[in-house]
Amino acid sequence: MGSNENNAVQWVEDVDVAAALIYFIYRSVQRHLARELAEYNIGWGHFAILMALYEREGVSQESLARSRGFDKTMIAKSLLTLEKEGLVYRKNDREDRRVKRLFLTEKGKRIKPGLDRIGSELNASLMGEMSPREASAAMGLIRTIAVNAARLP
Amino acid sequence: MGSNENNAVQWVEDVDVAAALIYFIYRSVQRHLARELAEYNIGWGHFAILMALYEREGVSQESLARSRGFDKTMIAKSLLTLEKEGLVYRKNDREDRRVKRLFLTEKGKRIKPGLDRIGSELNASLMGEMSPREASAAMGLIRTIAVNAARLP
Repeated sequence: MGSNENNAVQWVEDVDVAAALIYFIYRSVQRHLARELAEYNIGWGHFAILMALYEREGVSQESLARSRGFDKTMIAKSLLTLEKEGLVYRKNDREDRRVKRLFLTEKGKRIKPGLDRIGSELNASLMGEMSPREASAAMGLIRTIAVNAARLP
Repeated sequence: MGSNENNAVQWVEDVDVAAALIYFIYRSVQRHLARELAEYNIGWGHFAILMALYEREGVSQESLARSRGFDKTMIAKSLLTLEKEGLVYRKNDREDRRVKRLFLTEKGKRIKPGLDRIGSELNASLMGEMSPREASAAMGLIRTIAVNAARLP
């Protein structure tokens, strides 16, 4: 890794385009999570859906897509994998049978501590040596960029 | 868009995990660039490679991969598309024929102003109403996260 890492760090220091850095961070995290999540046979997208369900089980597929900016095709495809792995199941809403609600299986619930650990270790690694104050400023600014990104045409 | 956007903005305000925001920004920019770059038949990865070549033509495939943290398979695949679109060509290095260097075709050079415009409009949209001082602080913190991401196992 050593020299590759130094080259990339050199490049990062010189970039002044937010999207290029976001792309770089995305690919680095993607590679890291591919390895960390391999034992669960899932990737980052599935991980994101599971984390959303740990927070709010029973959410509808449509509302999950809407609230997180996931596109519908991506969600539908990811859910097939999550069902195949026996982590999630879909159930029609009692009142409106066109609405599909998402639930965690026992296995889906059982892997929560492992996924939580991966998530919090990743977050700690990304924030690194930042002081709590810097970390909170960083999150505020990244949130602003995320809100702006949500408004892109 | 309206209500989807509000839902996503609501979610963004509540997130305190950097990777989740990076994922969200990545997907929003990805969707935006897919549309903006459609007329060139390229996507974000190709765009990133072209921008790198506008900065430094003649770079080797290996050094491009190393310096930007692109993985080699992704670069190789993207270069096939860029060659097929007649935007880039590869040439063996004169001194070390195992090294392939990357160059822009006339067409590749011709589309630079269009791509530059897409890139700078995107950057302006992402930074939004930030003051120059906030924007520079934001870039500094995102750079720190990018350096930390480069060091992820």
